[in-house]
Amino acid sequence: MPVLLASGSPQRRAILEQLEIPFRIVVPDVDELVDGEPRQTAIRNSRLKAQAALNVAADDELIVAVDTVVSLDGTLFGKPTDEAQARSMLGALRGRTHTVVSGLTLLHGSDEHTLAATTEVRFREFDAKELDRYLRSGEWRERAGGYAIQGQGAALVSSVAGDFYNVVGFPVAGFLDLIGELSLGGFVGRSV
Amino acid sequence: MPVLLASGSPQRRAILEQLEIPFRIVVPDVDELVDGEPRQTAIRNSRLKAQAALNVAADDELIVAVDTVVSLDGTLFGKPTDEAQARSMLGALRGRTHTVVSGLTLLHGSDEHTLAATTEVRFREFDAKELDRYLRSGEWRERAGGYAIQGQGAALVSSVAGDFYNVVGFPVAGFLDLIGELSLGGFVGRSV
Repeated sequence: MPVLLASGSPQRRAILEQLEIPFRIVVPDVDELVDGEPRQTAIRNSRLKAQAALNVAADDELIVAVDTVVSLDGTLFGKPTDEAQARSMLGALRGRTHTVVSGLTLLHGSDEHTLAATTEVRFREFDAKELDRYLRSGEWRERAGGYAIQGQGAALVSSVAGDFYNVVGFPVAGFLDLIGELSLGGFVGRSV
Repeated sequence: MPVLLASGSPQRRAILEQLEIPFRIVVPDVDELVDGEPRQTAIRNSRLKAQAALNVAADDELIVAVDTVVSLDGTLFGKPTDEAQARSMLGALRGRTHTVVSGLTLLHGSDEHTLAATTEVRFREFDAKELDRYLRSGEWRERAGGYAIQGQGAALVSSVAGDFYNVVGFPVAGFLDLIGELSLGGFVGRSV
């Protein structure tokens, strides 16, 4: 079954490419929730994205939509608006464990399936020079929580517990398990 | 302090490049241990690699050497020699948690520092089609345990606990913490 990825995120595209799953893209135009309980918020946003893609999906396409949120002590961390806010976020996360939740919606016609995948990320006790260096890289832009674990942000992280790719922005294990349960995985068995 | 990476591994080079740490490379010619207690074996092999690089290192260079081993129930899993052995290894790892240990040696003149970093990796209960597909990719070649978590092998993994990049082949957090403690991190503070 062909995949329609409802996402403007280059990281999500890169993960599907890494998995050699063929897909096409539509960038959904939705007003995302930025507050609320992390799992509910991430699932709700992924449903909004999936539904926004319905009118462009072909009958045989499986719409795949994901929303990823970062939370610390129950507070959601969005994308920093400037370097000062990125500095503040990363300072708050330093030496502590935060939670990354991805909500996933699979939508095929009127069949809708959702899940939320959670990964804990522990940050190193990085020093002021390391933080300055990271901020100079500019990588904090357009990243929830102000870092990219698949980039130079790897240097900020001490350990993860859960699906690493969930932190990058796509819950790989949850997605593969769900399409397996739903017998939607025709593309997984194709010849390479 | 300039880094001399004693490794022929493209994955290790890619991680240092991702971190924007400048380095040059020497490929050490050593006889690696393939049996033994995982942490001791990984550290021992990394020391052998570092020492093999001593005669080509400049006075100011920090030699960095890593060896990564995969173990399940105390048995080390090396690089599969053919597809049948890769199939057997991945079948044994399926649905279970195995341990990846990287031994790291930093060598500067006569100063030697070592550490071992451990990450637990849980495999999905992938089905026969998924295993066949992965084997067809050929990615199992030259990989301890027969998979690459940073490639299509991401689809085999349910979760990790610890440093993700340790599974790729370089214990990023342990390395950065150690050079911080040793005040060897001059390159970390450089301008980007």
